[in-house]
Amino acid sequence: MGQDVVSNLFEVLPYLERFHGKTMLVKVGGNVLNDRKSKDCFARSITFLVCVGIKPLIVHGGGPEITTLMEKLGMKPTFRNGYRVTDEQTMEVVEMVLNKINKDLVATLNLSGVKAIGICGKDVNFLIAEKDTQYGDIGYVGKVKRINEDLVSWLFQAGYVPVIAPIGVGEDGTTYNLNADVAAAQIAIALKAEMIIFMTDVDGVMKDGRLVSQLDVEEALKLIQEGIVKAGMVPKLSCAVEAVKNGVKSARIINGNDPTALLATLFASGPIGTIVTNH
Amino acid sequence: MGQDVVSNLFEVLPYLERFHGKTMLVKVGGNVLNDRKSKDCFARSITFLVCVGIKPLIVHGGGPEITTLMEKLGMKPTFRNGYRVTDEQTMEVVEMVLNKINKDLVATLNLSGVKAIGICGKDVNFLIAEKDTQYGDIGYVGKVKRINEDLVSWLFQAGYVPVIAPIGVGEDGTTYNLNADVAAAQIAIALKAEMIIFMTDVDGVMKDGRLVSQLDVEEALKLIQEGIVKAGMVPKLSCAVEAVKNGVKSARIINGNDPTALLATLFASGPIGTIVTNH
Amino acid sequence: MGQDVVSNLFEVLPYLERFHGKTMLVKVGGNVLNDRKSKDCFARSITFLVCVGIKPLIVHGGGPEITTLMEKLGMKPTFRNGYRVTDEQTMEVVEMVLNKINKDLVATLNLSGVKAIGICGKDVNFLIAEKDTQYGDIGYVGKVKRINEDLVSWLFQAGYVPVIAPIGVGEDGTTYNLNADVAAAQIAIALKAEMIIFMTDVDGVMKDGRLVSQLDVEEALKLIQEGIVKAGMVPKLSCAVEAVKNGVKSARIINGNDPTALLATLFASGPIGTIVTNH
Amino acid sequence: MGQDVVSNLFEVLPYLERFHGKTMLVKVGGNVLNDRKSKDCFARSITFLVCVGIKPLIVHGGGPEITTLMEKLGMKPTFRNGYRVTDEQTMEVVEMVLNKINKDLVATLNLSGVKAIGICGKDVNFLIAEKDTQYGDIGYVGKVKRINEDLVSWLFQAGYVPVIAPIGVGEDGTTYNLNADVAAAQIAIALKAEMIIFMTDVDGVMKDGRLVSQLDVEEALKLIQEGIVKAGMVPKLSCAVEAVKNGVKSARIINGNDPTALLATLFASGPIGTIVTNH
Amino acid sequence: MGQDVVSNLFEVLPYLERFHGKTMLVKVGGNVLNDRKSKDCFARSITFLVCVGIKPLIVHGGGPEITTLMEKLGMKPTFRNGYRVTDEQTMEVVEMVLNKINKDLVATLNLSGVKAIGICGKDVNFLIAEKDTQYGDIGYVGKVKRINEDLVSWLFQAGYVPVIAPIGVGEDGTTYNLNADVAAAQIAIALKAEMIIFMTDVDGVMKDGRLVSQLDVEEALKLIQEGIVKAGMVPKLSCAVEAVKNGVKSARIINGNDPTALLATLFASGPIGTIVTNH
Amino acid sequence: MGQDVVSNLFEVLPYLERFHGKTMLVKVGGNVLNDRKSKDCFARSITFLVCVGIKPLIVHGGGPEITTLMEKLGMKPTFRNGYRVTDEQTMEVVEMVLNKINKDLVATLNLSGVKAIGICGKDVNFLIAEKDTQYGDIGYVGKVKRINEDLVSWLFQAGYVPVIAPIGVGEDGTTYNLNADVAAAQIAIALKAEMIIFMTDVDGVMKDGRLVSQLDVEEALKLIQEGIVKAGMVPKLSCAVEAVKNGVKSARIINGNDPTALLATLFASGPIGTIVTNH
Repeated sequence: MGQDVVSNLFEVLPYLERFHGKTMLVKVGGNVLNDRKSKDCFARSITFLVCVGIKPLIVHGGGPEITTLMEKLGMKPTFRNGYRVTDEQTMEVVEMVLNKINKDLVATLNLSGVKAIGICGKDVNFLIAEKDTQYGDIGYVGKVKRINEDLVSWLFQAGYVPVIAPIGVGEDGTTYNLNADVAAAQIAIALKAEMIIFMTDVDGVMKDGRLVSQLDVEEALKLIQEGIVKAGMVPKLSCAVEAVKNGVKSARIINGNDPTALLATLFASGPIGTIVTNH
Repeated sequence: MGQDVVSNLFEVLPYLERFHGKTMLVKVGGNVLNDRKSKDCFARSITFLVCVGIKPLIVHGGGPEITTLMEKLGMKPTFRNGYRVTDEQTMEVVEMVLNKINKDLVATLNLSGVKAIGICGKDVNFLIAEKDTQYGDIGYVGKVKRINEDLVSWLFQAGYVPVIAPIGVGEDGTTYNLNADVAAAQIAIALKAEMIIFMTDVDGVMKDGRLVSQLDVEEALKLIQEGIVKAGMVPKLSCAVEAVKNGVKSARIINGNDPTALLATLFASGPIGTIVTNH
Repeated sequence: MGQDVVSNLFEVLPYLERFHGKTMLVKVGGNVLNDRKSKDCFARSITFLVCVGIKPLIVHGGGPEITTLMEKLGMKPTFRNGYRVTDEQTMEVVEMVLNKINKDLVATLNLSGVKAIGICGKDVNFLIAEKDTQYGDIGYVGKVKRINEDLVSWLFQAGYVPVIAPIGVGEDGTTYNLNADVAAAQIAIALKAEMIIFMTDVDGVMKDGRLVSQLDVEEALKLIQEGIVKAGMVPKLSCAVEAVKNGVKSARIINGNDPTALLATLFASGPIGTIVTNH
Repeated sequence: MGQDVVSNLFEVLPYLERFHGKTMLVKVGGNVLNDRKSKDCFARSITFLVCVGIKPLIVHGGGPEITTLMEKLGMKPTFRNGYRVTDEQTMEVVEMVLNKINKDLVATLNLSGVKAIGICGKDVNFLIAEKDTQYGDIGYVGKVKRINEDLVSWLFQAGYVPVIAPIGVGEDGTTYNLNADVAAAQIAIALKAEMIIFMTDVDGVMKDGRLVSQLDVEEALKLIQEGIVKAGMVPKLSCAVEAVKNGVKSARIINGNDPTALLATLFASGPIGTIVTNH
Repeated sequence: MGQDVVSNLFEVLPYLERFHGKTMLVKVGGNVLNDRKSKDCFARSITFLVCVGIKPLIVHGGGPEITTLMEKLGMKPTFRNGYRVTDEQTMEVVEMVLNKINKDLVATLNLSGVKAIGICGKDVNFLIAEKDTQYGDIGYVGKVKRINEDLVSWLFQAGYVPVIAPIGVGEDGTTYNLNADVAAAQIAIALKAEMIIFMTDVDGVMKDGRLVSQLDVEEALKLIQEGIVKAGMVPKLSCAVEAVKNGVKSARIINGNDPTALLATLFASGPIGTIVTNH
Repeated sequence: MGQDVVSNLFEVLPYLERFHGKTMLVKVGGNVLNDRKSKDCFARSITFLVCVGIKPLIVHGGGPEITTLMEKLGMKPTFRNGYRVTDEQTMEVVEMVLNKINKDLVATLNLSGVKAIGICGKDVNFLIAEKDTQYGDIGYVGKVKRINEDLVSWLFQAGYVPVIAPIGVGEDGTTYNLNADVAAAQIAIALKAEMIIFMTDVDGVMKDGRLVSQLDVEEALKLIQEGIVKAGMVPKLSCAVEAVKNGVKSARIINGNDPTALLATLFASGPIGTIVTNH
């Protein structure tokens, strides 16, 4: 039995060597965080990364929980082009929910043995944002304007795992609701990350009912333009493309419901999810 | 006119020399944080401290806002001996509200020119807590068991101002609602702070209708035992006594509604609030 | 009363933020150093700068004391174009007097709470000089040829306040008498100082009997060329111009007899002395 | 398939966390080094340790090769109590052979991706030795008297893997032939290693034909005294006992012919070899 | 010819090894500093020390020059028990002359290739002194009360050679005239120097017309008590004894008029001057 | 007597100042290493260099000893164009002999007081080599392709003296026999050494029976082309030329049989050996 374990360790060794000391951004969605077993599994995966010398940082979303609390408070969530219309009251709910999810995840990670610290874009002005008006005025929805990489460098130096809530702050102190996928890609670019991994609730990019395991930028854009990739996958694939076009070595889209997917995409040789690279 | 300014600067010089490089913990309450002008004024005061080489850290509460959100959600706040009975649902509200207040304060401070970062006891296991049963079982109410000073040392080294929400984490990952005054005193002790300042909504400890500007530990305990100090002031004064008995040089109780009180207690010679010292 | 103090502190806060961590060179003349009260006041002002995170360094002169000692020794001081004709015997007197003034000032500063250290151009070859022949051969009068910034960087790193006597050393070890204003400007330029402040015995540059509070380089040069600025102010204003043309952000000419002028020009909003900037 | 790999990674995670940053000494014998496949496998195992943040150092022997070269040179190897009688000529052969083996192993390790550096006891006086006379005068056979840990600390700081040939140097510069097992134990003790692993050519300590997987000091000594452990295993078990009695957390005796044994004893839960601990 | 040089270098090698990295205080008197050739030779000797990794620091006197200037100024030098009666005016002359000598020596050293920096007891409060009343009230004569070793450590770290004028400063800022030999011994003790060397104008301690080349503390005290050592040598020998009794490894008294004596006492095997050790 | 020593020290001072902190590579041949007295003398010379702040590193050869061992083993040494034809068995002998010589020299140096460490090109991949085919296929003879300067920088930082055996390693792990002179020159170039010194068994470059004490690159090449320099001196002089053409300040060819030559060429003014410079 020990032999199987060891033969597996030998198998993962080339990946350990390749990824040692590299920065990896993991974007994790609600499906993972809302399920205790998935969340524990995610925490153990991150702990593994830390143990083998990888520097992970995590960006999370929180859409469903926001909607839940809004409804409890008698508010009516509305969306435009997939973006949540965010008035002042909504923004407060968003901030409360995301920070709660953030610290929950931090505690779960720490229980698993890493040293996680939860931050949002307000901390040390990490994510300076401005109003996003591409779909008209939908309130306090923002896009990242500038990133203060120093904060993350400093936390990495201490051996901490940064967990990031997608909230931005304007130069005048205004709070902004950021799209987590977009923010994740921008942070990965700013930090010159080796890889960005989007944990979604499907196995990856699908074409004709089958998983596409490898895509370069042109192929990815073509799938979007031709409408083969649809709905929620469009923004994720766009963010993946954006990241690899700007220096991130590879972007991966995997299924967060599969508790082994995160480590498998990094350390197993078989096809797991979709890998997007620049060429 | 310049002469008045300068003569004031000369007056504060001895205090600048005395406090240079020292750690100061400021406990700030809801009355300050709920008023935009007070909050801005508080932020400018903290910025001043940073500019003159003092290392401030801030612990905040958030009782009224918690009650407000609970009521909006149709929940019924109950208290025992001043402690909020905290079931699981309440704990969630507490955590959401405190983290929201925390990041709000962080943004206000950063706008004023410092580099604030918001943390709670879960971050890097800063505040390891356990269930507090001194008044029976009142749910997820905790007391601090162990503090990870390393986190704050590291943040100080970066020149950051830590803003701390009074939430603890059990060794099994359970979230605990901490009393902010008690946690503040324990953090000040653990960090060997020069001073702890409680910003309340009265001018200080009162006796026979007049402010008591100076107290040693014995005098303070006597005022409590004889019932001269009452209600909300009892726990604050007890925490002040606890702090100075354990190495903090002085504890001060000042009126947070007075926008000048924080700097005045440090840099003005007249009697501001109540000063508690060990002897 | 505490309120006035604090309101003043809030007023100076923007200046504290702007000047934090900056290098400021103060050229101080005999009128300040010969009066115990002025000297103490100067020391407290410098102590204030150190306390608020500014890095001051001081260049001093000493003309009148040199003349006094020469006369006691039966020597006859002579000048050409404002420069002291300096034969070998005179150079010895100059060196003795300036170093005595230097260490006096150091002691006064240290008594006030800073960590001052007195140096001259000979120390670690700080000011390499050569003979100045612009007004013919007037003996051991020199001009700065090269500055060893490393010495000051190292002293700043230790938190020391350098106090500099304007004596230079030739590459062959010859001692040179330097013009203090000119040396001050060159040091400020070499150290990329934020500001150079000339403490004189008048309120600043005067025109038609009134103080000129703001000048750019062109205006300053015009005042000199048109003969509106006269006598002792000409070299000071020229040095100020030289400094700001070479990277020093601003030069200020203030009245050293006013004990509040040094802090006032930095931290008060009213017009104090003359400010010279590049544009 | 990826799932099996990942489930194995989760299994090894607790061991990764426990051993992260720890020092481990591996004593490797001729059977491993003489077989290309075994040596490669050993190199990959060491590379794995480095990748997961363990600090390995290696001590090797070389008995059979020494004998081979001696015979080629027409010399006659003789032994007393298992120790090679070492005259001057023999010492030269020993040194040549061990250093050759040493650099061979270094090259193999570097090819596998680590940064190995080969040293012997002469380098920076790493192993100061003296003549060992416990079995009479058998020439240049020595025992370690003092270890210069600084050398290894420095190499670890650079991220290097030290590979150590068991040659000592007297205070007068004399070269000594050291017993590799004994030297390994002494080095492990001096470096406060977490673990010492003896790679032999049997599965571990045997009793009644079956592997004994766990022993404390008393049990181990009893097996020796009762003669149950025999021949070549006696010195190895004695060295293991010596190590754990002096602060090394555990000693392990494994079969170097099994290419998976080194990683298996560390990361697999089943019984691999014999583990010796203090209690 | 090269062979003689080299054979000498081999001869000095053991001393180079012994003294590498050690702190050595050299007390140098007026006879050396007043003679250009002696001073240059002294500078080259110090440069040699720096080149071979020794950390020298220098304390100088200046008695004769003080007397000369006093007489020029029409003042009348008076002494009590060898100490100069120092009124305020005299103190000013002392300070001027010593600082001039100090910076002269600094320039000579720098010309020779080291990085010398001249300090007195006022700089960064290096020598805190108090009034010395052992011979009654003789004015501003002081004795060292406390030494700020940090200053010298910092200068050593920069690779600078500190040159120290024996002027102290009281806690109230008063200037004190210090005995250079006594101050030198106290500084050597405070800095845990390896050696203190007194450069005088005789060959060392004489007895019956012959040089005594080696003395322990008891022998030295006996020579003083029996009156064999007389006049100016008494305080020097007393200071030497004081130094070695307080941790300085050896004290040496040599002839500063011999340009080779300083290097000879350190690097030549023959008897040069008098060596005082604790045993 | 002490005076002669000291006058010599003054004589060498300018050289000490010039060479302080510089890197010097010494190539030492078999004639030095095979004679105990020469080797001790060499060790003391290197110790002297370390004591005066020079950073030496040593490259050694070992031709004669290799031949001796080969013959003992019944192998037949053959050469082509001065290069040893190196089959696999020969390579093993080369490696054994060179590493033995290496550690011998290390021990001798350490006995003399330095901290020597022996490395070859395999350690941390210090010398990456490839097959040298300039004279056809002569087996495992290699030339340096890439140098890992980091290793030597790290060892220098620790204050160690690297002793280098001229063995290279291919990117596939193959062992290569390197020409020591060529490797020495390449290492000196890679480390931007101040000087490379070849210790041979003649006094330097001879012309018409007389030593040529100074050569620039052109003169040196002319001597080679015209056949005036012959046999073993040709490759040494070529290597010297190569070094100075690539940034090494000077190359020196001296007689290793003269125990004073190494220090004499550095510190004595007379003509010792041949000095090659770029111009």
